[in-house]
Amino acid sequence: MRVFNFSAGPAALPLEVLEQARAELTDWAGTGMSVMEVSHRGTAFTALAQRAEARLRALLAVPAGYRVLFLQGGASTQFAAVPLNLAAQGARADYLNTGLWSSKALEEAGRLAVQVNIAADEAASRYTTVPAPAALRLDPRAAYVHYTPNETIGGVEFPYVPDTGAVPLVADMSSTLLSRPIEVGRYGLIYAGAQKNIGPAGLCLVIVHESLLGRARADIPTMLNYARMAESASMLNTPPTFAWYIADLVFEWIERHGGLSAMGERNRVKAERLYDAIDASGLYRNPVARECRSWMNVPFTLVRPELTAMFLAEAHAAGLTQLEGHRSVGGVRASLYNAVPLAAVQALIEFMREFERRHG
Amino acid sequence: MRVFNFSAGPAALPLEVLEQARAELTDWAGTGMSVMEVSHRGTAFTALAQRAEARLRALLAVPAGYRVLFLQGGASTQFAAVPLNLAAQGARADYLNTGLWSSKALEEAGRLAVQVNIAADEAASRYTTVPAPAALRLDPRAAYVHYTPNETIGGVEFPYVPDTGAVPLVADMSSTLLSRPIEVGRYGLIYAGAQKNIGPAGLCLVIVHESLLGRARADIPTMLNYARMAESASMLNTPPTFAWYIADLVFEWIERHGGLSAMGERNRVKAERLYDAIDASGLYRNPVARECRSWMNVPFTLVRPELTAMFLAEAHAAGLTQLEGHRSVGGVRASLYNAVPLAAVQALIEFMREFERRHG
Repeated sequence: MRVFNFSAGPAALPLEVLEQARAELTDWAGTGMSVMEVSHRGTAFTALAQRAEARLRALLAVPAGYRVLFLQGGASTQFAAVPLNLAAQGARADYLNTGLWSSKALEEAGRLAVQVNIAADEAASRYTTVPAPAALRLDPRAAYVHYTPNETIGGVEFPYVPDTGAVPLVADMSSTLLSRPIEVGRYGLIYAGAQKNIGPAGLCLVIVHESLLGRARADIPTMLNYARMAESASMLNTPPTFAWYIADLVFEWIERHGGLSAMGERNRVKAERLYDAIDASGLYRNPVARECRSWMNVPFTLVRPELTAMFLAEAHAAGLTQLEGHRSVGGVRASLYNAVPLAAVQALIEFMREFERRHG
Repeated sequence: MRVFNFSAGPAALPLEVLEQARAELTDWAGTGMSVMEVSHRGTAFTALAQRAEARLRALLAVPAGYRVLFLQGGASTQFAAVPLNLAAQGARADYLNTGLWSSKALEEAGRLAVQVNIAADEAASRYTTVPAPAALRLDPRAAYVHYTPNETIGGVEFPYVPDTGAVPLVADMSSTLLSRPIEVGRYGLIYAGAQKNIGPAGLCLVIVHESLLGRARADIPTMLNYARMAESASMLNTPPTFAWYIADLVFEWIERHGGLSAMGERNRVKAERLYDAIDASGLYRNPVARECRSWMNVPFTLVRPELTAMFLAEAHAAGLTQLEGHRSVGGVRASLYNAVPLAAVQALIEFMREFERRHG
């Protein structure tokens, strides 16, 4: 009995992927072993690792000159790895602050002896907006510009890619990578925790232009050094093999279902229907400016907040699960990652209407 | 069709554990979701996390005053985290060098501005020995003493716990934790990558005495800060939930099969039989001093090295897999972790005898 799962992460995975993993959990690829039990340096696993990278490159149309890394530690480890690899001690870096995750990234950079320039700060709107392109106060001497294209808690998403000229653009794409086509060539570095559109928690992807390798400070932990990881094909030590394997199955699933254009079109429709239902209702409210509403994370509140707990409990009983808003803001949040089908969104909308009829 | 799996890591997992994971892969604990798809902050997963920690504490009889952390990045990340958390810039630390893994640990500490004192170095024996207790040149002003109780490549294991007086003892127990009872109270800090006796790659356990928290340097990556991880119950960010879940099943499996005394007795017998077979043969050689032979990793060579490739190929064909020696040394290595049954060792010994009859 599967439910509809709106978790912000770790999030829903495609049932086809889980079923394949189940079928081969004790005997993978004819090895007589689980994929969890084979050496990462053996021929079976290295073939898988290379296939996964090739699939990811094809899905994203990664141009020449980029390295793809399969790492551990989540995006939060990248909050440190980015400044330690790209900025000398005391160097300057631009950060766009559009919510909790970009705030965490810039705080970590500040702790690691980077002079952080907050090139935009949407605190005044309570993080319901993104800055206009002309409003970015970019420093042409910055080592890089960091931003968070999609904020999972606020539910705001940039409708444009910032133009940073010659300064490398760094993006935390944890909650948006693989949700639609992107132009990788616009970025110096992209990173993404896996547990939204990629695979299980415990894997973090980094796509980095080769020109940014070799700038690391001398005294950074080796495991955070992009150049060392790139040299060793992400196997400086034992990588998270099972998560890498599931990611490969997810990449294959995306291919089979039409690639990123098809994902993007499905995700656009899913989000549009849910926002339309919210806007048409008298009970539900989403505070985000229309042009920067997230396709992936739709937070909303009830006009009668005392009904929130009942809403969540009844939704859960109806098989609509993990709709709780982030603990920092409360309310409701529906995350609509790739593996969440349109049917789940329709079922949620139906439930919301019915709940409003009874309580609105 | 399951094979006998002698991998040094990622290593064999108990079939009972894999079968349970398979049975509930798409619907875990009545949630209607995979354990990979649930929020780490939800009630189902936090209950699992607490249960796993309680089981581990019970198995190891962890005394009061220790924190248990479930982290990412493998033991190699701990090579950096240990000095960054326990030693001020320029402070001194003792390292016992007994092979590749201890060498890597001490190199990383040296890179991170620790004055490394090599308190013992077994290079002269080509890492086939451990130092005698009286031979340790310990510095009473060291911030800590680091050692590797079991070296997976050389196959050497300390038959004693070094006495370091008031200086905290730090141990990389990646390849030995849970293989037999230990006295946790002797250690200031124990760390272990999961992919030997604990669970899948991508999880790393740290057991640290509270008195060592709060000594971290100001400018270390937050994700490497033990005190911050302890405060947040290892959930500063999304932890590797699936690996944590499998670890819990492995802990339960160890409990069900008699706990660490039973594991230790089985492991002693497995190792003894294999070393006896090697010593009784004319074809196979293990170079390690008898009193410090590893119970977990048994490396051996063939007196006629030109037969090694044939040995490995025929063993593989006979269902005895992943016996290749480490790429740095070649030869053969049989790792005998908890999930490798005595029957696997018996089958290997039979095969070795039969191979010797034909080629010896």
